[in-house]
Amino acid sequence: MSSAASFRTEKDLLGVLEVPAQAYYGIQTLRAVHNFRLSGVPISHYPKLVVGLAMVKQAAADANRELGHLSDAKHAAISEACARLIRGDFHDEFVVDMIQGGAGTSTNMNANEVIANIALEAMGHQKGEYQYLHPNNDVNMAQSTNDAYPTAIRLGLLLGHDAMLASLDSLIQAFAAKGEEFSHVLKMGRTQLQDAVPMTLGQEFRAFATTLGEDLARLKTLAPELLTEVNLGGTAIGTGINADPRYQHLAVQRLATISGHPLVPAADLIEATSDMGAFVLFSGMLKRTAVKLSKICNDLRLLSSGPRTGINEINLPARQPGSSIMPGKVNPVIPEAVNQVAFQIIGNDLALTIAAEGGQLQLNVMEPLIAFKIFDSIRLLQRAMDMLREHCIVGITANEARCRELVEHSIGLVTALNPYIGYENATRIARIALESGRGVLELVREEGLLDDAMLDDILRPENMIAPRLVPLKA
Amino acid sequence: MSSAASFRTEKDLLGVLEVPAQAYYGIQTLRAVHNFRLSGVPISHYPKLVVGLAMVKQAAADANRELGHLSDAKHAAISEACARLIRGDFHDEFVVDMIQGGAGTSTNMNANEVIANIALEAMGHQKGEYQYLHPNNDVNMAQSTNDAYPTAIRLGLLLGHDAMLASLDSLIQAFAAKGEEFSHVLKMGRTQLQDAVPMTLGQEFRAFATTLGEDLARLKTLAPELLTEVNLGGTAIGTGINADPRYQHLAVQRLATISGHPLVPAADLIEATSDMGAFVLFSGMLKRTAVKLSKICNDLRLLSSGPRTGINEINLPARQPGSSIMPGKVNPVIPEAVNQVAFQIIGNDLALTIAAEGGQLQLNVMEPLIAFKIFDSIRLLQRAMDMLREHCIVGITANEARCRELVEHSIGLVTALNPYIGYENATRIARIALESGRGVLELVREEGLLDDAMLDDILRPENMIAPRLVPLKA
Amino acid sequence: MSSAASFRTEKDLLGVLEVPAQAYYGIQTLRAVHNFRLSGVPISHYPKLVVGLAMVKQAAADANRELGHLSDAKHAAISEACARLIRGDFHDEFVVDMIQGGAGTSTNMNANEVIANIALEAMGHQKGEYQYLHPNNDVNMAQSTNDAYPTAIRLGLLLGHDAMLASLDSLIQAFAAKGEEFSHVLKMGRTQLQDAVPMTLGQEFRAFATTLGEDLARLKTLAPELLTEVNLGGTAIGTGINADPRYQHLAVQRLATISGHPLVPAADLIEATSDMGAFVLFSGMLKRTAVKLSKICNDLRLLSSGPRTGINEINLPARQPGSSIMPGKVNPVIPEAVNQVAFQIIGNDLALTIAAEGGQLQLNVMEPLIAFKIFDSIRLLQRAMDMLREHCIVGITANEARCRELVEHSIGLVTALNPYIGYENATRIARIALESGRGVLELVREEGLLDDAMLDDILRPENMIAPRLVPLKA
Amino acid sequence: MSSAASFRTEKDLLGVLEVPAQAYYGIQTLRAVHNFRLSGVPISHYPKLVVGLAMVKQAAADANRELGHLSDAKHAAISEACARLIRGDFHDEFVVDMIQGGAGTSTNMNANEVIANIALEAMGHQKGEYQYLHPNNDVNMAQSTNDAYPTAIRLGLLLGHDAMLASLDSLIQAFAAKGEEFSHVLKMGRTQLQDAVPMTLGQEFRAFATTLGEDLARLKTLAPELLTEVNLGGTAIGTGINADPRYQHLAVQRLATISGHPLVPAADLIEATSDMGAFVLFSGMLKRTAVKLSKICNDLRLLSSGPRTGINEINLPARQPGSSIMPGKVNPVIPEAVNQVAFQIIGNDLALTIAAEGGQLQLNVMEPLIAFKIFDSIRLLQRAMDMLREHCIVGITANEARCRELVEHSIGLVTALNPYIGYENATRIARIALESGRGVLELVREEGLLDDAMLDDILRPENMIAPRLVPLKA
Repeated sequence: MSSAASFRTEKDLLGVLEVPAQAYYGIQTLRAVHNFRLSGVPISHYPKLVVGLAMVKQAAADANRELGHLSDAKHAAISEACARLIRGDFHDEFVVDMIQGGAGTSTNMNANEVIANIALEAMGHQKGEYQYLHPNNDVNMAQSTNDAYPTAIRLGLLLGHDAMLASLDSLIQAFAAKGEEFSHVLKMGRTQLQDAVPMTLGQEFRAFATTLGEDLARLKTLAPELLTEVNLGGTAIGTGINADPRYQHLAVQRLATISGHPLVPAADLIEATSDMGAFVLFSGMLKRTAVKLSKICNDLRLLSSGPRTGINEINLPARQPGSSIMPGKVNPVIPEAVNQVAFQIIGNDLALTIAAEGGQLQLNVMEPLIAFKIFDSIRLLQRAMDMLREHCIVGITANEARCRELVEHSIGLVTALNPYIGYENATRIARIALESGRGVLELVREEGLLDDAMLDDILRPENMIAPRLVPLKA
Repeated sequence: MSSAASFRTEKDLLGVLEVPAQAYYGIQTLRAVHNFRLSGVPISHYPKLVVGLAMVKQAAADANRELGHLSDAKHAAISEACARLIRGDFHDEFVVDMIQGGAGTSTNMNANEVIANIALEAMGHQKGEYQYLHPNNDVNMAQSTNDAYPTAIRLGLLLGHDAMLASLDSLIQAFAAKGEEFSHVLKMGRTQLQDAVPMTLGQEFRAFATTLGEDLARLKTLAPELLTEVNLGGTAIGTGINADPRYQHLAVQRLATISGHPLVPAADLIEATSDMGAFVLFSGMLKRTAVKLSKICNDLRLLSSGPRTGINEINLPARQPGSSIMPGKVNPVIPEAVNQVAFQIIGNDLALTIAAEGGQLQLNVMEPLIAFKIFDSIRLLQRAMDMLREHCIVGITANEARCRELVEHSIGLVTALNPYIGYENATRIARIALESGRGVLELVREEGLLDDAMLDDILRPENMIAPRLVPLKA
Repeated sequence: MSSAASFRTEKDLLGVLEVPAQAYYGIQTLRAVHNFRLSGVPISHYPKLVVGLAMVKQAAADANRELGHLSDAKHAAISEACARLIRGDFHDEFVVDMIQGGAGTSTNMNANEVIANIALEAMGHQKGEYQYLHPNNDVNMAQSTNDAYPTAIRLGLLLGHDAMLASLDSLIQAFAAKGEEFSHVLKMGRTQLQDAVPMTLGQEFRAFATTLGEDLARLKTLAPELLTEVNLGGTAIGTGINADPRYQHLAVQRLATISGHPLVPAADLIEATSDMGAFVLFSGMLKRTAVKLSKICNDLRLLSSGPRTGINEINLPARQPGSSIMPGKVNPVIPEAVNQVAFQIIGNDLALTIAAEGGQLQLNVMEPLIAFKIFDSIRLLQRAMDMLREHCIVGITANEARCRELVEHSIGLVTALNPYIGYENATRIARIALESGRGVLELVREEGLLDDAMLDDILRPENMIAPRLVPLKA
Repeated sequence: MSSAASFRTEKDLLGVLEVPAQAYYGIQTLRAVHNFRLSGVPISHYPKLVVGLAMVKQAAADANRELGHLSDAKHAAISEACARLIRGDFHDEFVVDMIQGGAGTSTNMNANEVIANIALEAMGHQKGEYQYLHPNNDVNMAQSTNDAYPTAIRLGLLLGHDAMLASLDSLIQAFAAKGEEFSHVLKMGRTQLQDAVPMTLGQEFRAFATTLGEDLARLKTLAPELLTEVNLGGTAIGTGINADPRYQHLAVQRLATISGHPLVPAADLIEATSDMGAFVLFSGMLKRTAVKLSKICNDLRLLSSGPRTGINEINLPARQPGSSIMPGKVNPVIPEAVNQVAFQIIGNDLALTIAAEGGQLQLNVMEPLIAFKIFDSIRLLQRAMDMLREHCIVGITANEARCRELVEHSIGLVTALNPYIGYENATRIARIALESGRGVLELVREEGLLDDAMLDDILRPENMIAPRLVPLKA
């Protein structure tokens, strides 16, 4: 093939560039690729963002046709292109780095150019023959990056949200199932890493389900509240300059239909153009879930520590050999990976926060980083939850005898006996036990403070793990 | 006074200490003071936390009396002590450092001891005569630090919340009033710090009101959702061990009545004992408001930059001389201080986040730091908003002529003319203007592209700052 | 006393205010107090900053006298005032909030006014009679806040630095002493919270000394490198406008002499006026030490967990009763407090970082927050290290039998036997041990794989804890 | 090709898996791929890490051969494999996610397996025929992940360090050249965004060079200090268990020779195994450079703001069209991208910091995230600096007339006149200028306060921008 055939020439305000002939993106995308060789993570790394962009372009095209600004032929070709992007084709044409200057212009132009060239081919033209259908004039018609891009981000997040919630829900179910399975396993509770009072392993796992359940409930309502208000139609700064007065309403309505999400126009478009508050809070909520997951994984690693020199109350399923040098060593690799995901999400939240603070006047020019970090967090969170459930939680087993032995051997048990043998006896027994290394029960039996029937009654799990009417102090 | 009279001797499990005779706190508080000489910020720095503690102690005493565990006399004395704390007396007796080990035990004991000694005096006894009324046995009856302390923190935050919302609301009103006042002031909007398209100064200030209004609405619902579920009654780890089964319900009910906040018992007390999720999200929300305020203050500093070599569209009221070396210099000190408050709140959120992640098993032992940071953030935020409103926003004036001049002088104006003179003319005029340093309007007039009536019509603020049906391109 | 006598009237560019008669600060300080009611933490909270300010004022006065701009009488009075501040008097006159707008102008004026009024009284005048000695004209002569304030901060940090290093050094010695004391205590090492291979408790504590020793070495060189270059003499923006060309050299030289620190003038005063890099790196270094301390304290809490259901290899000294509800419970309150200090220092580092990024053009207006956070971190770090040493490390004891028992009971021990019994035997023994709950040594003895003499030799601490030439595999 | 031929079967402790026949990685890598589907960023994303791993394996093989533990034939084959990795081949075989549990075991095994299979083919065997050369027994001989992996990370960072310094140095040169080029351009300095006093644009750009020059100097010394001490030879926890006593010395010596970096063994291997302090401080230093770059880019964006409604003192080169809706708009996209890189680096530093704090006992299991974040930061920083220099700094031009006009029009100019016309005149002139909108010079001339020769002398750049002996106040 001749060299001439390998490239096509495109031009923009700054001059001409040779674009690879097979590329569906165009000159402005190429400029951005040259300008921003930074993270090495292209837009295509986050497919929901690509789909969000395609849906916005589809909605705009629909509105523009209805208002008479876009011909049926062009509309049909654009629609065909958007449909293909929505079903996952051509995503590797979204080549611009996620970190980019220009407040998203390059991402928006990447979408405009790819759609235009797919559409051109659908119309029987060659890529780059923009005289028949133009990335700016036709695909980007009535839009500014400043309204199309934030709208696509919000939509992309909403599109990924249900899948994340499903993963969270499955994880909660897995914890709840273990809570049920372990409901009869009596064990010692620990506060400040010191022996406290008895509880069941089931209560411990149910609490994991409960705490994540609170996040599920909150995320379910929060995401739609935060993300469904869009600024599409505000154009450059929210005044809607040069837009048809009927456009905003139509475009948002179409976008709601296409996406299946109840999108509505922002009440104050000036504010909506520059405001990043929704992302800050949404990321803060993702951070909260990450923090909870990290705490849970810390607990799982503590509870499974050992097998001989740790707590060893539970066993995590073995996922990979732990050491070549230490025979038989198996490590809690899954919770460890979740911890690290959580730390990354906390770091993402910070980068996003600083970016949000860095907005100036009528626009937040740091929005590409905000989009990058929040898409990264939502996906990492989902994947980490799936990994945790599949590769760890469902396979956890309890070392029931070990749990029981630790209770009976513990000094904290004396707290449960307190109401029956009195505070003075309890303190004395505790001290003797600690000094002698003997067990509390053994000492109580030896001294005849309580008979076996009474002790059995007190030590029944259902009596140890909930409030109980204390006997009269006769 | 003899030296013997200056101290009283108290004892606990670890031995005896000399407590200053006039002190209402006791030996455990004193141990904590000796142990934790860290931040230099005592509990009394946050009065709402002290009041929250007093209300919890009152509610517990009420429940205990009703259940027959506390005598009427003791209850009356405790009630008297709590009432005095609630109305602001004795706060300087809360001397323990906000940063402390022990998961809040020292704060809880500080409250127990102060209340006991106030109550003892009310009963006609001496401070320290705990045989008549005991900090642990009576004031702390049926409580553990692990349920009383988190409950007091939540309540303290709720108690401060309304005042903060009132400050936020006032600030919003101030911005909205300026939005109204400046609604006729046409100015240039800027994106990426580059001239964009016209808007009004009123739109800009109204957007500040809008964005903060979203936070007001969210904080109003979020705080009660997050903070009204309390774990009082769960005792050590949430199993309610050694508590009367009727106690939890009664105590929470009483606390709701006393505080006027609709507190309810947590559904899963095991989870509620160690979970810090509510604080993480609440702090995340405070951070969001801080980020918005910081962005607004950045804008105010940009818009008032100058007076001669900056933007100079608005004037901030002078609050203090700006420089001894530069005559007449007045600086935007109030927004600058708000920026710094915002940065501190972001830092607080991080410290709190790491502390939340650091919880282990049945308790989060880092809760004192969490309490410290969130009380700090909520108060700083309120004070910064009051300062910003009183000392800055209400006194802002517009340099209307300067704003108008910048619009007329700008090249961005050509965007508004675009639909009327065509894209080619617009681009040509823009280029000539940029190269020659002349104005767009001047050039348009010179070339006779539009007559004065038409130009006046286009440039009327109401026509520049909203979508408009473009004329037929004849 | 009449009301008239309780106040004196002062005036500045913005008008007049009534200043409390007994106050040594003046009108500009009072304006700042009215403006900035934020953190509630006044300048006086950090005495080294006050001393740093006083030394700068002294050095400037010395230089100005030598250049003939300040009379001997005024110089003597200013010197008397500075001397009193340096030895700790009048610190409670530094009343401005640490968070303030104006890039430190209020702190600088607080110093100027207090010094002026002390000096006035020393000269036989009344406070406020600035016609005899003026806060700006005399005390602030040849200075701008923009050079005097950053110089005072750097100096204040240097003044506090040696004390912090001494605390760090003492802590290292305490860890090293325990390393020595525990050098014979064989125990299991753990990786990923799983049993790994043997080591000594002494090695573990010596590693704490080593890791902090690296920080001591680095801090010793880093602080002088970062903080001794000052911009005094640069005046408003580093051009030295309106300053005597000889002033910079003289003033810095004097300041070096007064402070005993080898201060030098910055090479590029424009750069030095706005650059916050030294603070960012110094705070980053404090953060590193905080992170190490937090990791060490996490380890101490793990190693002392129990007493019955945790690792329980060491005992921390009891510092305060741990629980009213659980008899005999003692918690690791000191390490817990250190963790929280570390988290606050991480949060401080973040707030400082964002403030550093927020500088614009010729000045960083966020410097007051930077000073606040770094003084806070350095002091917290010092106090936390003193607390940790005195109240915890020196009193730690080892549970030697428990440590030994865990080694002998562990399966990881098989790794040490590997070279002697072969990999296949080792793996088989490990599996049997894990399944049966029996000990590795017991099984090895039972199977006669190694005789007692050989086993004793292998298990001697000195043979377990370092590389060893393996025997020929006969 | 038959399905049977497409896979080969491998086995490890946990069982068997089908590995793609063409893959050079093996079963343990595949398990990790299945376990950790998280960030989507594989090890190969950071080539220096791959090269670092290969060099460690080479050094270990060299030492093992010299000690007689590895045959010449195996050594030759391993060496061939390492050489190919070092020159960039086979990097796409490093497929494990950068976020992984297991403290780097999967990365280490990925290297062991790839090297083994390349070596096997070089020996004439098939991939997977580990009986001839084994990933663990031969390639990983005498190593533990816990010493090989941290060593490879340190080495990888050192390998990338020089290139980053070269980029930093080039950027400094670019700023310095502009400092020279603009040394005659007089302009107003600004503090707190308010007009201050005159300076040159050259001083402003030279200060950018100076501040980055300080970072260059520090990074040059810091990186070797921090990263050259390695724990290779410590095996599992630093005791060197089961290693030949001569191995450590030999292996580190070989690694120094191979890499050309002066690596030395850590003095305390227990400490070195778990300590992350070097990474925390190195990342803190990268963060400092990022903060400085962000501040500089904020300044560039401010100084180039406009063209008509901003400061407009400089022009940044146009890199891409700024807006489809606003003709002629060109945005500062390059500095904007640098800002975002800086924010990401700050976020990376946080994630790394939390990971460092999360280490427990004898290992930091979060090290994979630490490696991920620091490799990401160093590369982003280098790329951002190259981008900034090439695409922005070298093309910056000054609007000299605009700069001069702002000086002459400014009120701050009066500060320079202060010593000549007296404070009272200066203040009066300033007030009149501000109220009337007229210029200071114009008023001074009008009042005859200074003659033109005197004014010209005062206003000559060299007299405005440095200390100057003031005239006698006659």
